[in-house]
Amino acid sequence: MTLADVGRRLDQRGWVLGTSGNFSEVVRRDPLRLAITPSGASKGDLCLDELLEIDEDCRVVNGRPGRPSAEARLHVEIVRQRGASAVLHTHSIWSTVLSERHASGAGLAIEGFEMLKGLEGVSTHQHREWIPILDNDQDLPRLASVVREVLSSHPACHAFLLRRHGMYTWGDTLPQALRHVEIVEFLLEAIGRTGC
Amino acid sequence: MTLADVGRRLDQRGWVLGTSGNFSEVVRRDPLRLAITPSGASKGDLCLDELLEIDEDCRVVNGRPGRPSAEARLHVEIVRQRGASAVLHTHSIWSTVLSERHASGAGLAIEGFEMLKGLEGVSTHQHREWIPILDNDQDLPRLASVVREVLSSHPACHAFLLRRHGMYTWGDTLPQALRHVEIVEFLLEAIGRTGC
Amino acid sequence: MTLADVGRRLDQRGWVLGTSGNFSEVVRRDPLRLAITPSGASKGDLCLDELLEIDEDCRVVNGRPGRPSAEARLHVEIVRQRGASAVLHTHSIWSTVLSERHASGAGLAIEGFEMLKGLEGVSTHQHREWIPILDNDQDLPRLASVVREVLSSHPACHAFLLRRHGMYTWGDTLPQALRHVEIVEFLLEAIGRTGC
Amino acid sequence: MTLADVGRRLDQRGWVLGTSGNFSEVVRRDPLRLAITPSGASKGDLCLDELLEIDEDCRVVNGRPGRPSAEARLHVEIVRQRGASAVLHTHSIWSTVLSERHASGAGLAIEGFEMLKGLEGVSTHQHREWIPILDNDQDLPRLASVVREVLSSHPACHAFLLRRHGMYTWGDTLPQALRHVEIVEFLLEAIGRTGC
Repeated sequence: MTLADVGRRLDQRGWVLGTSGNFSEVVRRDPLRLAITPSGASKGDLCLDELLEIDEDCRVVNGRPGRPSAEARLHVEIVRQRGASAVLHTHSIWSTVLSERHASGAGLAIEGFEMLKGLEGVSTHQHREWIPILDNDQDLPRLASVVREVLSSHPACHAFLLRRHGMYTWGDTLPQALRHVEIVEFLLEAIGRTGC
Repeated sequence: MTLADVGRRLDQRGWVLGTSGNFSEVVRRDPLRLAITPSGASKGDLCLDELLEIDEDCRVVNGRPGRPSAEARLHVEIVRQRGASAVLHTHSIWSTVLSERHASGAGLAIEGFEMLKGLEGVSTHQHREWIPILDNDQDLPRLASVVREVLSSHPACHAFLLRRHGMYTWGDTLPQALRHVEIVEFLLEAIGRTGC
Repeated sequence: MTLADVGRRLDQRGWVLGTSGNFSEVVRRDPLRLAITPSGASKGDLCLDELLEIDEDCRVVNGRPGRPSAEARLHVEIVRQRGASAVLHTHSIWSTVLSERHASGAGLAIEGFEMLKGLEGVSTHQHREWIPILDNDQDLPRLASVVREVLSSHPACHAFLLRRHGMYTWGDTLPQALRHVEIVEFLLEAIGRTGC
Repeated sequence: MTLADVGRRLDQRGWVLGTSGNFSEVVRRDPLRLAITPSGASKGDLCLDELLEIDEDCRVVNGRPGRPSAEARLHVEIVRQRGASAVLHTHSIWSTVLSERHASGAGLAIEGFEMLKGLEGVSTHQHREWIPILDNDQDLPRLASVVREVLSSHPACHAFLLRRHGMYTWGDTLPQALRHVEIVEFLLEAIGRTGC
């Protein structure tokens, strides 16, 4: 599975419309190298040779044209904090709607759904997953530090939402990160339609 | 039609996101042998050679790697109780939402829809189909015995829901089981949107 | 364009789930011969050589196995009353939901939408389209006579709904009939979501 | 990317059902020549050789059969006012529903969504996008002059809605226009579902 496969699939679901979203995968850990989608790429027809390789300061190190998404900092932060191998960021309708509906609580709890077991390490539907919601911010260094703090305060969370923006999740492998996208999107839609 | 075809189709509908769901088909009746999807398989791109063959105690007998879903017991139970040749378990938004909305009644009645005639043996829209809803449970032997009891108390039912979990249906053939998935999902969505 | 192309397209939209729906096309007018989908066919993967040819009494005249849908009588009735060359019957969520919501009025009026201009002969969004709703009935000869009466009372209508069942539309050509399906389904969904 | 690619993609999303919508691309600026979809074409399987080339008075100049949509005048107007290279007009459920819901205000404001940054020149989610809503009109010269006036009064807008009709957007390139379609549709759906 490659980031191009992931892009095709998430595009078909309508979760990365209009060149939105960004994906990364760890190429090497020491020193840290991430393959990341360039800003403005259509996720439904990604070519692997347009992926940028960046270092931990988000500088492009493989000499390709294009610039990494400004959100590359969040990817690096997540990889560092969680030891993730892949980070996927999507913009779905339901993550956007729920990030607003639950903004005042700074997150939402999801509990009692069998689908929770699709999140790595969860073995019962009685699990309570807290999905933090962070205010959106165009100051990415500042946002990255909020992400760091939130990941640290919620060491068990598998994903977070940016308010009126979208969802971030990750995984130990790319297939696991993809599974997390689908599980979290499912849960958000189920809750969104229940609350309707 | 193979389980791989079924997987592709149900994946496109969004009813088996994130490796959820599981499918089985009877290979032999005496002694009972079921081909069943392994735990954690992506249903949209199933390979037939990853299917496990299990006996009535859910032990893998074809020597392949992978372990059967913990829910294999429910498949065996349904095959025994109903004489089914195929069992399909899906996780859709509407089955999840309605399994909660109607949980207090332990089921929902569906009546008056032409689509009911897609359920084997039903010849009029005036048929009243009762879809039992069972509480979800991680203790599968216990859940299997509840399934046995419910199937026995509702000998005419074509499907049941597990609360906040998903839907089980079956058929005398694999195409019939697939048709039942589509019919039940349609009916649940129609009811879900009517009640909106 | 063939009925198989139409089937693939309508199946992708989710409007003929579970072998529901039926399609026909006039092969000859005098004596009347219709190519019609057999009962129980999957519309998403129709083979042209499974189509049945029937006469005006719905008897199969091309010697193929399979039996025509019981609703073949409605197709013949529509072809006769409207001079249509193709008749398409679909089972969508929104036609089902709205056929119930507007049942007490025996139909619904659609007015003011640009999409109305996709209905043959309509040249302004100010057109008022009346979509009759008929009670569903398993007595097909009786239902066929109600259809005859309704088509005669509403000589300008392009489609009708059967209550909690689905939609019938038709066209001078198969592409026109397909266009009518899409236009009517769009309008019903737009109204359904507005009323939400 | 061609108009045929755009058509396939927008058709899959269900935004150009039943031959609705129309697309154009600037071929030459002086004198102005637009390649435009002919009236009645299925957008999901456009052939490039059915595109018409028109001049600024909407006369066909490449000798092909078929007539340009009556709305070609709006395309010409947008190209002139905005210097656009491509104009895309779609008919989605949510643009139709919201064009009615917000008709009394003659438009709707969209603010606070990250997806706004997909609109050319927008660099923050705090941007406030005003999407004008114009009454639908079958008198196209009159409607074209209203479009001219609205574009002139709202020099920063990226799209407008025609009431109970659909959406127009455009771009400096065809990919940019496509991106604008997806961004605006996403935003409308997010707002539509929030308000539900």
